[in-house]
Amino acid sequence: MLPETPTIETQVQVMFFDTDCAGVVHNIAYLRFIETARTELGEQLGLGLADMSRTQLFPVVVRIEINYKRPAVLGDRLVVEGRLETVERSRFWCAFRVVRPSDGALIVESRQMLALVQMPQGKPQRVPAHWMECFAHLRS
Amino acid sequence: MLPETPTIETQVQVMFFDTDCAGVVHNIAYLRFIETARTELGEQLGLGLADMSRTQLFPVVVRIEINYKRPAVLGDRLVVEGRLETVERSRFWCAFRVVRPSDGALIVESRQMLALVQMPQGKPQRVPAHWMECFAHLRS
Amino acid sequence: MLPETPTIETQVQVMFFDTDCAGVVHNIAYLRFIETARTELGEQLGLGLADMSRTQLFPVVVRIEINYKRPAVLGDRLVVEGRLETVERSRFWCAFRVVRPSDGALIVESRQMLALVQMPQGKPQRVPAHWMECFAHLRS
Amino acid sequence: MLPETPTIETQVQVMFFDTDCAGVVHNIAYLRFIETARTELGEQLGLGLADMSRTQLFPVVVRIEINYKRPAVLGDRLVVEGRLETVERSRFWCAFRVVRPSDGALIVESRQMLALVQMPQGKPQRVPAHWMECFAHLRS
Repeated sequence: MLPETPTIETQVQVMFFDTDCAGVVHNIAYLRFIETARTELGEQLGLGLADMSRTQLFPVVVRIEINYKRPAVLGDRLVVEGRLETVERSRFWCAFRVVRPSDGALIVESRQMLALVQMPQGKPQRVPAHWMECFAHLRS
Repeated sequence: MLPETPTIETQVQVMFFDTDCAGVVHNIAYLRFIETARTELGEQLGLGLADMSRTQLFPVVVRIEINYKRPAVLGDRLVVEGRLETVERSRFWCAFRVVRPSDGALIVESRQMLALVQMPQGKPQRVPAHWMECFAHLRS
Repeated sequence: MLPETPTIETQVQVMFFDTDCAGVVHNIAYLRFIETARTELGEQLGLGLADMSRTQLFPVVVRIEINYKRPAVLGDRLVVEGRLETVERSRFWCAFRVVRPSDGALIVESRQMLALVQMPQGKPQRVPAHWMECFAHLRS
Repeated sequence: MLPETPTIETQVQVMFFDTDCAGVVHNIAYLRFIETARTELGEQLGLGLADMSRTQLFPVVVRIEINYKRPAVLGDRLVVEGRLETVERSRFWCAFRVVRPSDGALIVESRQMLALVQMPQGKPQRVPAHWMECFAHLRS
């Protein structure tokens, strides 16, 4: 059974390779942090990595919006909070916040629109029928 | 003297490390392609990498919007077209299109909002006064 | 007090951005996995990320040797085992194995030589005197 | 016809995402620079990216040795020099040097051993018979 609103929290510590010579986390690194969270969120939706290898049904990112609010630095322990935000017939949005618990700072927020694509044909699919029921409160 | 509308084109060939096991370019890789183009666009604005090391005045990405339109694959030769889109008092937008000349496909489009920050204090600066004159046609 | 032989284990699940279009984990991705383990190993040696920001004494990778033994794929849960291997007067070696517990496969093994560098001057330092005592059994 | 000793030179300018908060190019970034050079070297050997997609015969990195000699910094224009070094029956070595022409500094040197693998079976292949003739002077 699907959770009412799929929600996830992942943790990451900022490594050297996440930072750049301005002394802060590079803007691209946050998208890796978020992708890890999105992957775990996907598992709640029946779109886990093991499922995908088998079904060849892949969630594909169609649009990303990302706002950089505060810099994070080497060694920071960050939390990525993710949730399923809205569901449409053939796509869905996930929302993410990267926060730093040590001072409560909001570092980054992002919304990402995804579609389901059947590989290897690359054919877009509707979202599963039972999502529309389970997530009636998330339909836009 | 600044160009009327700063515009850039850079080229990149898709490498293995740009792709993922779905057989296409990974969504994060495009942000590297675009950053390289943005860097060259910055040079037209007096924000070249050598300038930055000296002035410690850095363009900082505040928001990214990116739409993934078509997949690109290993070996594709892509062109990133970038231009300064709009200028405001304390921030500016750049717009990018990643295209594949071999078939004319539009692969990715992105808009990125930047601010100028004086390091190491991290203090936001207004855009240079002469930008407002040179780019009067780009003021929003 | 330092552990007799500093040893670490970290875990990582293979994400899309770790793989390439040959369907396997890309050779560069393993170096990220290992850097995360090396960072945690460094904390046992008084070279934690928070320490570094304060002391500006950085472990710098001088040489990497890495053997790719078996491919890993999307979704694999891998363990990186790391340990301090040998200590010399002005440098030290760490050894790593990336294994896949589900089938016991050895995926990658790597040895990395590091030196300690005082930033921002970039001046190499001897390893701390107490290391030579604590790790007498690791001196080469 | 194959060149007597396949040799390549590629150029790269150091971007923000190549650097880390120690102010220098991160050790992992050089492996991207070298992979781009190795890919172009592969084209001289009939292992171009377009060839691979068709033949599914992939050069696979089996071992990397990399020595970090001098740091490079933001904005540096680097040259990667690569050449086929030795050829054995079922594997071959490529050698690379990353240099900075502005001051002649040797930044990084690397040797990489590769094998040819037939995908999707993952079966190792002998190097092409005509390599053994053309590169008789490179046989070890």
